[in-house]
Amino acid sequence: MKILVVNVNTTESMTDAIAASARAVASPGTEIVGLTPTFGAESVEGNFESYFAAVGVMDAVTRYEGSYDAVVQAGFGEHGREGLQELCEVPVVDITEAAGHVASLLGHKYSVVTTLDRTVPLIEDRLKLAGLDARCASVRSSGMSVLELEERPKDAVKAIVAEAELAVTHDGAEVICLGCGGMAGLDEAVAAATGVPVVDGVTAAVKLAEALVGLGLTTSKTRTFAAPRQKRVSGWPLSPGTGPVK
Amino acid sequence: MKILVVNVNTTESMTDAIAASARAVASPGTEIVGLTPTFGAESVEGNFESYFAAVGVMDAVTRYEGSYDAVVQAGFGEHGREGLQELCEVPVVDITEAAGHVASLLGHKYSVVTTLDRTVPLIEDRLKLAGLDARCASVRSSGMSVLELEERPKDAVKAIVAEAELAVTHDGAEVICLGCGGMAGLDEAVAAATGVPVVDGVTAAVKLAEALVGLGLTTSKTRTFAAPRQKRVSGWPLSPGTGPVK
Amino acid sequence: MKILVVNVNTTESMTDAIAASARAVASPGTEIVGLTPTFGAESVEGNFESYFAAVGVMDAVTRYEGSYDAVVQAGFGEHGREGLQELCEVPVVDITEAAGHVASLLGHKYSVVTTLDRTVPLIEDRLKLAGLDARCASVRSSGMSVLELEERPKDAVKAIVAEAELAVTHDGAEVICLGCGGMAGLDEAVAAATGVPVVDGVTAAVKLAEALVGLGLTTSKTRTFAAPRQKRVSGWPLSPGTGPVK
Amino acid sequence: MKILVVNVNTTESMTDAIAASARAVASPGTEIVGLTPTFGAESVEGNFESYFAAVGVMDAVTRYEGSYDAVVQAGFGEHGREGLQELCEVPVVDITEAAGHVASLLGHKYSVVTTLDRTVPLIEDRLKLAGLDARCASVRSSGMSVLELEERPKDAVKAIVAEAELAVTHDGAEVICLGCGGMAGLDEAVAAATGVPVVDGVTAAVKLAEALVGLGLTTSKTRTFAAPRQKRVSGWPLSPGTGPVK
Amino acid sequence: MKILVVNVNTTESMTDAIAASARAVASPGTEIVGLTPTFGAESVEGNFESYFAAVGVMDAVTRYEGSYDAVVQAGFGEHGREGLQELCEVPVVDITEAAGHVASLLGHKYSVVTTLDRTVPLIEDRLKLAGLDARCASVRSSGMSVLELEERPKDAVKAIVAEAELAVTHDGAEVICLGCGGMAGLDEAVAAATGVPVVDGVTAAVKLAEALVGLGLTTSKTRTFAAPRQKRVSGWPLSPGTGPVK
Amino acid sequence: MKILVVNVNTTESMTDAIAASARAVASPGTEIVGLTPTFGAESVEGNFESYFAAVGVMDAVTRYEGSYDAVVQAGFGEHGREGLQELCEVPVVDITEAAGHVASLLGHKYSVVTTLDRTVPLIEDRLKLAGLDARCASVRSSGMSVLELEERPKDAVKAIVAEAELAVTHDGAEVICLGCGGMAGLDEAVAAATGVPVVDGVTAAVKLAEALVGLGLTTSKTRTFAAPRQKRVSGWPLSPGTGPVK
Repeated sequence: MKILVVNVNTTESMTDAIAASARAVASPGTEIVGLTPTFGAESVEGNFESYFAAVGVMDAVTRYEGSYDAVVQAGFGEHGREGLQELCEVPVVDITEAAGHVASLLGHKYSVVTTLDRTVPLIEDRLKLAGLDARCASVRSSGMSVLELEERPKDAVKAIVAEAELAVTHDGAEVICLGCGGMAGLDEAVAAATGVPVVDGVTAAVKLAEALVGLGLTTSKTRTFAAPRQKRVSGWPLSPGTGPVK
Repeated sequence: MKILVVNVNTTESMTDAIAASARAVASPGTEIVGLTPTFGAESVEGNFESYFAAVGVMDAVTRYEGSYDAVVQAGFGEHGREGLQELCEVPVVDITEAAGHVASLLGHKYSVVTTLDRTVPLIEDRLKLAGLDARCASVRSSGMSVLELEERPKDAVKAIVAEAELAVTHDGAEVICLGCGGMAGLDEAVAAATGVPVVDGVTAAVKLAEALVGLGLTTSKTRTFAAPRQKRVSGWPLSPGTGPVK
Repeated sequence: MKILVVNVNTTESMTDAIAASARAVASPGTEIVGLTPTFGAESVEGNFESYFAAVGVMDAVTRYEGSYDAVVQAGFGEHGREGLQELCEVPVVDITEAAGHVASLLGHKYSVVTTLDRTVPLIEDRLKLAGLDARCASVRSSGMSVLELEERPKDAVKAIVAEAELAVTHDGAEVICLGCGGMAGLDEAVAAATGVPVVDGVTAAVKLAEALVGLGLTTSKTRTFAAPRQKRVSGWPLSPGTGPVK
Repeated sequence: MKILVVNVNTTESMTDAIAASARAVASPGTEIVGLTPTFGAESVEGNFESYFAAVGVMDAVTRYEGSYDAVVQAGFGEHGREGLQELCEVPVVDITEAAGHVASLLGHKYSVVTTLDRTVPLIEDRLKLAGLDARCASVRSSGMSVLELEERPKDAVKAIVAEAELAVTHDGAEVICLGCGGMAGLDEAVAAATGVPVVDGVTAAVKLAEALVGLGLTTSKTRTFAAPRQKRVSGWPLSPGTGPVK
Repeated sequence: MKILVVNVNTTESMTDAIAASARAVASPGTEIVGLTPTFGAESVEGNFESYFAAVGVMDAVTRYEGSYDAVVQAGFGEHGREGLQELCEVPVVDITEAAGHVASLLGHKYSVVTTLDRTVPLIEDRLKLAGLDARCASVRSSGMSVLELEERPKDAVKAIVAEAELAVTHDGAEVICLGCGGMAGLDEAVAAATGVPVVDGVTAAVKLAEALVGLGLTTSKTRTFAAPRQKRVSGWPLSPGTGPVK
Repeated sequence: MKILVVNVNTTESMTDAIAASARAVASPGTEIVGLTPTFGAESVEGNFESYFAAVGVMDAVTRYEGSYDAVVQAGFGEHGREGLQELCEVPVVDITEAAGHVASLLGHKYSVVTTLDRTVPLIEDRLKLAGLDARCASVRSSGMSVLELEERPKDAVKAIVAEAELAVTHDGAEVICLGCGGMAGLDEAVAAATGVPVVDGVTAAVKLAEALVGLGLTTSKTRTFAAPRQKRVSGWPLSPGTGPVK
C-alpha cells in the first residue's frame, strides 16, 4: 500500500518531518511518499495561505505520476480536502478530521491545541463542517507560529502543555489533539505532561487511511465528490514545467 | 463609491451579465466594475473548481490596480470569501451570504434553488459556516447546469419555478434565493410565478456592500481576517504577466 | 424614500437621538421620521415592558397617517417585529437583527454589549429566533440602565468598553454590537478603544432598510407575515383620540 | 389551591370551555378561575393578535383582585408568558410548553397538530425558545381556524386525526399535542383514532401548575423574571374602569 | 395512587431517605413504595455501575408483586429509564429529566450541581438525549461522593452551595437542580444560601408522576417503548429466588 | 494483536458470522476472538434487551481470561460501550460509532439502514451522543428483524437495498451504513445495487481498533472513563460459575 502524505506548505524540512512521523506508525508494507507543493506559503496560518495551499496540494497530487492507494492532506485546519476527494479515486484523509475522529474514540470530549490564535477559527470551521464540533471542548492557541515550532521545540512543548492542561482542567477535555502538522513528534512529551492521550493528526490520518484501504472502501462518487465535469479549465495544472498560467 | 464585482468563472459574458445586474440596483454614484479571473473553470460546479476559483478571485482582486470601496464575490456557494477578507481593507460580501441575510429579513424561512444537485452540499456548507442555516428551509437543485442557464433561459426559469414552488408548499419557505450568480435577472419571473419574494445574491450583495460602506464599517482585522503575516509565498500572484509559478 | 424609525419607549429625547443617529447615515433622499409610542415605559428593560412596547410600536405605526417605505423598530432585544411585519406592506427591520446581520459580514464572531444583566436573556432569545446566535460569541451586560446611558455618558462608554474588551480577548469576538437603541452615537468611542468594528443597530437598520427598498423587496406575505385575518378585535388601536379601550 | 386559567382571546364561550376542561383534571381542592381579556381578538391566529393578547392577558391577571396560587396562560403558541412571570410571584405555566414537557415524558418524539398553517411558525418559535424543539418531530396544521373548531367539531376531529396519523407514520411522532387551547376536549377522540397518547395543553398545564405549587416552587426572581423595575409606565393597566390610555 | 420510587444503588438507608423525601411532597392519597435493587453498587458514580444499576432497577420493578400507578427512577444521570418504559404499562419518570423539566418552568436557564466530576458527562448525556440541554447553563461538580453526602452533610451543603453560587453568577443559571438522588432534603439549605429556586429530582419526579396519572396518560407504546418482543431471554430476571443466571 | 469481538445477543451462530466477518478484514497478525454473552436475549431489538446486553457484554469481557489489545462491541445502536471503556485498559470500539466515523470519511452525508422500526430511535440516540448525527442524513428501517436477517437473507438484501436507494435519492446520503451486526457480509450486495460505498460496522470497528492499537493510544482514564471506584458491588460478575447473584 502506498500513501501520499502531502504537506500544505513549501517548507521541505517540514514535509520530511511529517513523512518520518507517518512512517513511524505505518504498517509493514505501507510505503509513505511525502509531497511538497511547488508553490505556496512557507507556512500556512490564515485563509489566503490556506486557499492557496488547497490549490497547491491539488496540483501536487494531480502531477504525481506513480500510483497510490490513499492521500493524507497534512495541514491542520486547512482548506481543500473536498477538492482532492473529487480529483482522486482513492480515499483522502485530512489530518484535522483524522485527529477528531480518533480523539472521539478515546474520550468523552477532546480539545485541540494549535499554533497562532488566528488559526483557531479556521480549525473550528473545519470541525463544524466535518460534524466533529459536538464533542470538541475547545480549540486553544499556544501562541507559537508554525515556524517557531521547528525553531524552538522546547518552548513549543511548554506552551502547548500549558494550554493542554487548561483544556483538561477547565474545558473538560479528556484527549488532546495537536493542531498543526508541524507538531508531529511532540505527542509523547505532551502526553507525559498532561496524563491524557494525545492525538497527532498525521499519524492518525495514516492509520485511518490504512483502515479505509483495508476495508476496500473509497470516497463516494455519487454526488458531492463526483469527478469534476468535463469543461474548459484554463491555467491548470499550475506548477512549473507546465508553462505559465494561461 | 466603486464596487468590484468578481465573477468566479472565466466566462466573460457571465461577468457582463452579473455586472449589468449589479448596476441595475446600484445607487446613483456607485460604480460597478466587473472582474473576470484570468484562469479557472468556465463554470464552477464543484469543489475542485471552487477552490481553484477562490485563488482566481483573489488573484484578480489583488492585481486590480485602481482603488475601490468594496468587493462582491459573485459565486453562489463558492469558497474564498475569507481569503479576500484577509487581503482587502474594504468590505467583502459573498453573494451566498448576502442572499441569506436579505432573505432572513423578509420571511420566517427561506429556500435556495440552485443549479446541479452536486452543488447543493457546497451551498449547505457555506450557509452553515455563515450561521445562515437555521432559517434555511432547504437547498434545492433545478438540475440545470450553469451554462445551461445561459443557453436555455426559458427551461431554466421553468425548472427553477418548479423547485421554488415545492420549497414554498412542502418545505415551508417564504422567500426564495436564486442559487447561482448566473441566475441574475431571473428573479422577477420566479417571483411572478411563485408569489413570494425572490432574492438574487448579486443584487443583494451590492446593496449590502453599499450599506457597509455607508456605515463606514469594514472587515475586522483583529483575528481571523488580519492581513496575512509577512512570509515567503512562492508563485503568487498567479496570473500572466507575472511569470510562471516559481 | 421615507423610513419610520420607531422608538420602543416613551422618552422623546431618546427618539430624537435615535432619529439623529439614523439621519447621520441615511442616503441623500432618505427622509427619517422618528416616532414615539403614546403609551408604555420610559425605558424598556424587561419582558413586561417589552411586550407592552410591542403593542405601543404597532399602535404608533398603525396610526401614522403619511406614507412610508420602510419601518425600523429601534429597541434592542425587544418583542414585536413579527407583528409589525403582518401589519405593514413595507419592509420592517429590527435593530437587534440588523446589528447581527451587519456584524456577521464583518468578522468571524461578534458580541453584544447591552445595558442591564436582566436584558441579556431577551437579546439571546431574539438572536436565537433570528438564527443569528451561531456566530454570536456572547451577550454581555455593562450594568448601566437605559436612562443612565443618557445621564452618565462617560461612565457608560467606560463600562461598555470594559465589557467589549473582555468580549474580544476572552470570548473571541471580532466585532462589537451596541445592545441598546440608546447607545446610538457611542460607536466611535468604543471602536477607538477596542480596535474592532462597532455596529450600532439603529444605523445598521437604516442602511438595511434602504437596501431592501433599493432591491424592491418587502416582507413575504405567504404565511407567517400575511396580513391579520378579518375578525373582531376590540380595543384596537389603543392610543388617545380613539377613545378608551372597549 | 386556586389557579387562574387565562384565555388569550375575547371569546367567553372559549374561556368557559377551557375552564371546564381544566376543572375536569384539577385535583380535589383545586379551584379553577377562568379569565377573559377585556380587549383583544376573538381568536388569536397570528403575531399582531398574539402580541396584543400578551398585553391583554397581563392586564387581566394584573387586575384580578383575589389571591391565587398559579397562572395558566391558555393560548397555544402565543406570546407573553415571560411578562406574566415578571408580574407574578406565583408560578406561570404556558400551555404550549406544558404540552411539550408532558409529551416528552411519554414518548421519544412528539408532534403538534394545530389550526391554521400560519400559526405553525409561531409554535415552532415558542418551542425553540423553551428548548422543547429537539424532541418535536413536527408541527402540523389541520387547516381549521380557531373558530371553526367550535363551529364544526366533527370536521375538526377528522382534520386533526388525519394530520396526527401522518405525524405518527411519517414524522416518527409517538405522542400528539393538540396545538390550540380551543381543542381542549378533543384528546380522547384523537387518541382513539391514532392509538398514541394525546396531550392537551390546558389540562397538562393545570397538572404542572399543581405540581409546582405542591413542590413549593415558583419562578426565579434572580434575573430574567425579576419584577419590573420602578419606572414611569404610562397607559397601564389598559382595561376599562382605569380610564383611557394616557 | 401508588408510586414505586426505585433507588439505583443498594444502600437501603438511601432508599429510605429518598422515599421519605418523596412522601413529603406526595398528595394525600398517594402511597410511596421505596424499592432497592437486590444487586448492584452501593453508590452509582460511573458508567459500569450505572449500566448495572439499569438492570438492577428493571429487575426490582419486574419482580414487584403489587400493582402500582407510576414508577420513579431515583438515580440522577443514570441509564435505564427507556428499558423501564418498555417493561411498564404505567408512566415512568426519571429524576434527572424531572428536575430539568421543572427547572425549565421556573427560570430562563438552570444548572445542575452534582457529586463527583466523573459523573458530569453522564448527566450531560442524559440531558442531551432528553432534549433538556438547550436551557441547561452548566453541570457542576461539588467534588463530594454519593456516600460522603450521607456522612458529611454539612460539608456537602457547603460544597454544593459554593458551586451553585458560581452557576448563578458565572453561568447565568436562575434555578439550581440537585444532581443526586442522595441530595434529597438539601434543597432548602441551598435555596436559602443562593436565593434561587432549588429543584430536587426526587420530589419533582413524584409530582410529575402524579400529574401524568392525573391526566390519565402513560408511555406511548407505538414505537420506541413498545413492550419487548416475544423471544428467548436467558438469565432474566436476575435476582435471588429466581435461581442463578442460566 | 488480539481483538475481542463481543456479540450483544446470545445467538452463537451470529457470533460466528460476526467473527468471520471481522477476520476477513483483519490485518495479518491480528487474531479475532468472538465472545458471546452467557445470558441475555437471542437478538437485541429494544431498550430492555439492550440494557441487559450491556451488562452481558461487560460480564463476558470481564470474565475473559486471556490478554487482548482491543475490544469491539458488535451491537448496532446498543448501550454499554461507556461501561466497557471504564472496565478496560485497552481501546473499545462500538460498531455503531465505527460505522459513522468511517462513513464520514467517505461522503458528505451517510444514512443507516437497520432492522425494525423500533430500533431507529436507539440508533439515533447513540449517534447523537457520539456527535455523529450532524452528517447522518437518516436512519431507515428495513422492517426485517435481526433473526429474519439470518433466516431470509435474500429478502433482507432486497429490503435493505430498497431503503438504501431511498436514502440516496431522497435523503441525500452518499454512503450507507448497515445498521445491525447481523448484516455483516451483506455490504457487497448492497453496494452493487446502490452504487455507493457501504460500511459494515463490524469490519469498520476492527480496522479502527487496529488503528488505535497501531497508534499506541487507548481510552483516556482522566474523567468519564476512569476505572470504577473501589466500592461494594454485589452480584457481580453475573455469569454462571460465579454462583447466583447475591
